[in-house]
Amino acid sequence: MRETARLEERFGPDSVGIVQTQYYTFAHPPNEMVLESGEKLGPITLAYETYGKLNPQKTNAILICHALSGDAHVAGYHTPQDRKPGWWDFMVGPGKPFDTNKYFVICSNVIGGCKGSTGPSSINPKTGKPYGLEFPVVTIGDMVEAQRYLIDHLGINQLLNVVGGSMGGMQALEWAIRFPDRVKTATLIATSARLSAQGIAFNEVSRRAIMTDPKWNAGNYYETEEKPDAGLALARMIAHITYLSEEALHRKFGRKLKDREKYGYNFSTEFQVESYLHYQGDAFIKRFDANSYLYITKAIDYFDITKGGQLTLEEALRPAKAKFLILSFSSDWLYPSKDSKEIVRALKKNNLEVTYCEIKTDYGHDSFLIRNPTMEEMIVNFLAKNLEE
Amino acid sequence: MRETARLEERFGPDSVGIVQTQYYTFAHPPNEMVLESGEKLGPITLAYETYGKLNPQKTNAILICHALSGDAHVAGYHTPQDRKPGWWDFMVGPGKPFDTNKYFVICSNVIGGCKGSTGPSSINPKTGKPYGLEFPVVTIGDMVEAQRYLIDHLGINQLLNVVGGSMGGMQALEWAIRFPDRVKTATLIATSARLSAQGIAFNEVSRRAIMTDPKWNAGNYYETEEKPDAGLALARMIAHITYLSEEALHRKFGRKLKDREKYGYNFSTEFQVESYLHYQGDAFIKRFDANSYLYITKAIDYFDITKGGQLTLEEALRPAKAKFLILSFSSDWLYPSKDSKEIVRALKKNNLEVTYCEIKTDYGHDSFLIRNPTMEEMIVNFLAKNLEE
Repeated sequence: MRETARLEERFGPDSVGIVQTQYYTFAHPPNEMVLESGEKLGPITLAYETYGKLNPQKTNAILICHALSGDAHVAGYHTPQDRKPGWWDFMVGPGKPFDTNKYFVICSNVIGGCKGSTGPSSINPKTGKPYGLEFPVVTIGDMVEAQRYLIDHLGINQLLNVVGGSMGGMQALEWAIRFPDRVKTATLIATSARLSAQGIAFNEVSRRAIMTDPKWNAGNYYETEEKPDAGLALARMIAHITYLSEEALHRKFGRKLKDREKYGYNFSTEFQVESYLHYQGDAFIKRFDANSYLYITKAIDYFDITKGGQLTLEEALRPAKAKFLILSFSSDWLYPSKDSKEIVRALKKNNLEVTYCEIKTDYGHDSFLIRNPTMEEMIVNFLAKNLEE
Repeated sequence: MRETARLEERFGPDSVGIVQTQYYTFAHPPNEMVLESGEKLGPITLAYETYGKLNPQKTNAILICHALSGDAHVAGYHTPQDRKPGWWDFMVGPGKPFDTNKYFVICSNVIGGCKGSTGPSSINPKTGKPYGLEFPVVTIGDMVEAQRYLIDHLGINQLLNVVGGSMGGMQALEWAIRFPDRVKTATLIATSARLSAQGIAFNEVSRRAIMTDPKWNAGNYYETEEKPDAGLALARMIAHITYLSEEALHRKFGRKLKDREKYGYNFSTEFQVESYLHYQGDAFIKRFDANSYLYITKAIDYFDITKGGQLTLEEALRPAKAKFLILSFSSDWLYPSKDSKEIVRALKKNNLEVTYCEIKTDYGHDSFLIRNPTMEEMIVNFLAKNLEE
């Protein structure tokens, strides 16, 4: 109890406090998981975290799906010394929107990732060496299929809610179509039923930044001294621009210079916005694997529930049974509101219950990672309503 | 005459036909040009082309200023075998908007460029080797100052019109402020009085793509076998996305695959939009110098007629005397209409005559390089009105 009191003092009463990442391994040969590509993958380990308690009826489970650079560590701290909590800490905890007094919250690192789940940096059991490009290309569908193994393992039949922003929203949408009976409600934030041509274009230049870095070495850099840090940092810098709106960049940095009053007339970093991007790039290489970046962006590019136009959106969504909450952000130009509205219309044509809100904010695509009263309130109400029903 | 007839048959009656690039060298030491940075540069050569004839009163001269990747070759062909004409050929020629039956049209390659004007790939007379990064950083003001030498050399006191899109528009605006008595009218297309934070951000990641290519070698690659082609191609690919609107990319490519019907589940080029970007990158390295790309993007970043907010836009524009035509494109997100409208308002506060039109088009920033009846008509009328007055 004294320990609990001390942690509460350290982290506050609405923090989940100290949490531990857990691991579940499945799909052992010869029962590998069959991927959308037709290739087989196994064994597969998923790193995951849970917060709160599963109720006896097992009806209060929420699966949070992370975005491109996220991981299983949604909330709380791994050690008392951690300076930063999990990536969506303001959303998950006692009394927070995903209220751990009420809900059992789960998040797992996607396959293809580099935060504990099986991905290109994992050891290939067939060779005893890291997979590198031997790792098979995975899709959003494959990520969801792997999560389904975990949900089975946790003994949960139906998820109260599957929720995610950006690529996380793609997974939530995929869950609702692929496993209609196992998803009571789905919350899609700043996402799309298929990535736009512009989105593919930005992902491709980001991948190109990595793959043209000589230190990438066709994906074989795990056992060498140097990694494709320059390429990965550049990829992150490019992507980061697309996560913010022009307005946010203007307000935050404008044309302000960094640590100087006059132009230097050279090619050093001069503007604050340049310095900020470099910081983002440099911080990213410390926590992310370049090959995982390739695999995950490829999965995002491939996401298209209409199967390349073979189905209309209405047809593609026909299997879904969940109630939907869909949120988009007015200044998000990477996953613009029109992509969300398209899903809303198609769901309504299928007579599904859907609540939609375009939230006014100028933070751009990354808005879902920033506290927003409207977003929080809508999620709270949507969950409360559906827990009772 | 038979030769003329043959060329007319080859190129059409509204082509300027075969043209030759000319060169003017000035600022010979010890009379070097003093740059905004305080550094001196000389001798300076400008590559330029002219079309049409200067009238005896010298009142029909139009200076076209090119954008980042442009050059002096605006219209016509250098040889009868050329497959493509100059970069704004549809705008310049007999009967075209910049009608060479009426106007004397001039365009020079900017200093810092790589198409015949003095830039980082030129020989530094002090060392006998290419400048590389020894070349001083230049500004839009410096580019305009160098053009002024050329206009003096051509014996023109006042330009009927200075016109340009994007960085060309920045030069036209700079001309109007810097040399008010020498600019009768100015046409600014898809431009801004200062580059946005987002614009700086994209330029910086493009530069970073070049500077992290090991073959860039701190700018010393002119005498080596290999050039920073991968970095320059990537820079161009990044920039190219920003030149097009999401709508244009969607209409042109959508999610269509290239030469295949199914996903390949590997990292080869699969989507048409990827293939298009690679084509753009690969074509660019054949015609552009990586160091020039660094210098010119830096000049664009530095452009800010308010001098970092020391002046209001109204104050910054106070010296101008020209009549203005300002055009922006509704789908241009790199130089959005609001940037143009800001200039319009400030000019009006200074009681200057200004005509403004936001042209509805979904081609994005690059719209000025594509035929557009509204753009052409507005330019024709604006010029006709001001030639007579």
